[in-house]
Amino acid sequence: MHETAHLLLALFVIFVAAQVGAEIAQRLKLPGVVGEITAGCIIGPSALGWLASAEIAVGTPLDMLAEIGVVLLLFSVGLETRLDDLRKVGRSAFLVGTLGVIMPFVLGALWAHGSGFDWVRSMFVAAAFVATSAGITARVLQELGVLNQIESRVILGAAVIDDILAMLLLGVVTSLQGGKGVDLTSLALVLLQATGFVFVIALVGTRVMRARGYWLNRPINPLSPLTIALAICLGLAWLSTEFGLAAIIGAFLAGMIASEIPQREELEHQMQPLLALLTPFFFVLTGAKIDLSVFNSTAALTMLGIVTLIAIVSKLIGGGLGALSLGRRSALIVGIGMVPRGEVGIVIASLGLTAGVFSNDIYAVIVAMSLLTSVVTPPLLSMMFKRAGRNASKAN
Amino acid sequence: MHETAHLLLALFVIFVAAQVGAEIAQRLKLPGVVGEITAGCIIGPSALGWLASAEIAVGTPLDMLAEIGVVLLLFSVGLETRLDDLRKVGRSAFLVGTLGVIMPFVLGALWAHGSGFDWVRSMFVAAAFVATSAGITARVLQELGVLNQIESRVILGAAVIDDILAMLLLGVVTSLQGGKGVDLTSLALVLLQATGFVFVIALVGTRVMRARGYWLNRPINPLSPLTIALAICLGLAWLSTEFGLAAIIGAFLAGMIASEIPQREELEHQMQPLLALLTPFFFVLTGAKIDLSVFNSTAALTMLGIVTLIAIVSKLIGGGLGALSLGRRSALIVGIGMVPRGEVGIVIASLGLTAGVFSNDIYAVIVAMSLLTSVVTPPLLSMMFKRAGRNASKAN
Repeated sequence: MHETAHLLLALFVIFVAAQVGAEIAQRLKLPGVVGEITAGCIIGPSALGWLASAEIAVGTPLDMLAEIGVVLLLFSVGLETRLDDLRKVGRSAFLVGTLGVIMPFVLGALWAHGSGFDWVRSMFVAAAFVATSAGITARVLQELGVLNQIESRVILGAAVIDDILAMLLLGVVTSLQGGKGVDLTSLALVLLQATGFVFVIALVGTRVMRARGYWLNRPINPLSPLTIALAICLGLAWLSTEFGLAAIIGAFLAGMIASEIPQREELEHQMQPLLALLTPFFFVLTGAKIDLSVFNSTAALTMLGIVTLIAIVSKLIGGGLGALSLGRRSALIVGIGMVPRGEVGIVIASLGLTAGVFSNDIYAVIVAMSLLTSVVTPPLLSMMFKRAGRNASKAN
Repeated sequence: MHETAHLLLALFVIFVAAQVGAEIAQRLKLPGVVGEITAGCIIGPSALGWLASAEIAVGTPLDMLAEIGVVLLLFSVGLETRLDDLRKVGRSAFLVGTLGVIMPFVLGALWAHGSGFDWVRSMFVAAAFVATSAGITARVLQELGVLNQIESRVILGAAVIDDILAMLLLGVVTSLQGGKGVDLTSLALVLLQATGFVFVIALVGTRVMRARGYWLNRPINPLSPLTIALAICLGLAWLSTEFGLAAIIGAFLAGMIASEIPQREELEHQMQPLLALLTPFFFVLTGAKIDLSVFNSTAALTMLGIVTLIAIVSKLIGGGLGALSLGRRSALIVGIGMVPRGEVGIVIASLGLTAGVFSNDIYAVIVAMSLLTSVVTPPLLSMMFKRAGRNASKAN
């Protein structure tokens, strides 16, 4: 009984901290996720200590709840991603997405290797530089009311491609990390296995869903499309770990497959309460795992500055170059729009910490970098769109 | 990583087993919950062994998920219960609810004491005989399309009163159990504390919600009424454990309070996906915890027979007597409608097992009894309503 009571208190504290943090962040015009992570920092072991380190370690009930939260989050991101949309978005989006992955990856790997990591670890660190947070970008664009403008479409299309490339990259890097010895044959096998899994699930799954999606209505359960989709999500999340990929990749694929059924909007709608309950545990625990004492040193603060600068500049260059055909100002807007890292970068950092690849220092720095990029983007994007709007009005 | 993968597999297996079980049960015209519990029996340690005993023990991640599931379930039951409805339902419903609690409690306690339990433990066992499952009854009445008939209204009104009395009873019994020594002063204090908590939360909470419910719309978060309601649910679930009550009582009260806000229907709607994801863990684990080997003996089977008989007869008498003013046939229908035990009885049995009051034998018997009453009722109720309908048509 006492154990249950203690756990309920922890659930309550985490959940309320997340709500308060998100509310304050949003009143300050920042994404809610920034507030949830900050709340985690504050109530975590390195500040108030309302959560103990042992309570949030891997395999604990709270950690599993966080894991379920992030699995559901990536499932819902997948739900907003259709295979066809990837084909429809033009050359610009593809260029922006690809260059926006390559630049941060290369610059990140160079920096990490320069800081003394071996190449495999450097690639893991670099992978955390890559993924644009489609969620944060989309939320900002929506708030500005510019979702129908060409830059927004390119950003969103590119963010999708970016996400998938980042997932692939993460899968490959995780496998490499797991394999340790870099034997070329096994490397090829690992790569083939991982990409094979992704492509088979994406292509076959999508077709099956299109052709047989009505099967999801057959069960008596009135919530049936949701329950079957959740079963697929949990199943693929587990299966992808069997293929050496992260659980969230399977969850993302499950979402992308499920987006093919006619009840897709209903599913997205039904996912909202699930995300509202469970994702706060992921973000608060993310924040709670940051060892704030790391930032007591000038060295760490310098590292944070450099990492954040690399993260911003690499996306500006990569994204901007890809969108140059739209004109300079639009290219700049697109570049800025690609800057925010969020969930995925933090997820990769968490994986790195769990796998023992990242030290507490580099974990704290990467999570802080994700925070900073998310904090910097909204006002910049807002400024650029307003200026562009004024010029456009003048031109009319 | 490996631990996470293993846990994801367990989540997948439990969730799918629950869906398959519920689907089969519903195709056999049984409540889905019967199938979920049966599925738990089958995949649990005493049959297939897909879940190990250590994986589902108290304090494990899976157990916590089950706990969250039942907390949310009782929250949603509370959401369907308004303080005003309790005042509106007439004398019949009150009589049926009260007698329907007293009869099973008295007969259950007598049987338990006769079987060798001391009086305090006997009262705990008897508490598991009490609670009608409003969910199962309502679902059956809905399927029969007789929700607007007088018997249905009395059954539903009585089920609400029944639920609250059972909760109070459970609270008192749990406190008594916790107190061990039956000192009259501390007994009175415990009773005062528990009932005081329930009444203060119910009355003050209801008023605050009515007067200040619009506060729940103030946060920026578009899911805000839900998130605040969930925070209240987790908070009161924890707080009620501090008052010596079960977490589910706090959750139920939170639901009842939240039912006063204008967005109540939206809340009920948003709870559906949460229940769909999380309650299966409770019911499957409930089933998995049943030690099937208990039923190898004739003695245990005899005990099951006696307990089930007491459970059915006591509700028929108690419920029937309370509804006698409606005529004999209607009284019989009401009595049958009150027979199914479900969630709450099983919850009490789980609490008893956790607190060490119940042996594996008595736990298995009580859970099996809950199953049997749920299985027996739907066809009986259906038969009675159809016969009553035929007579009514003849009378016209």
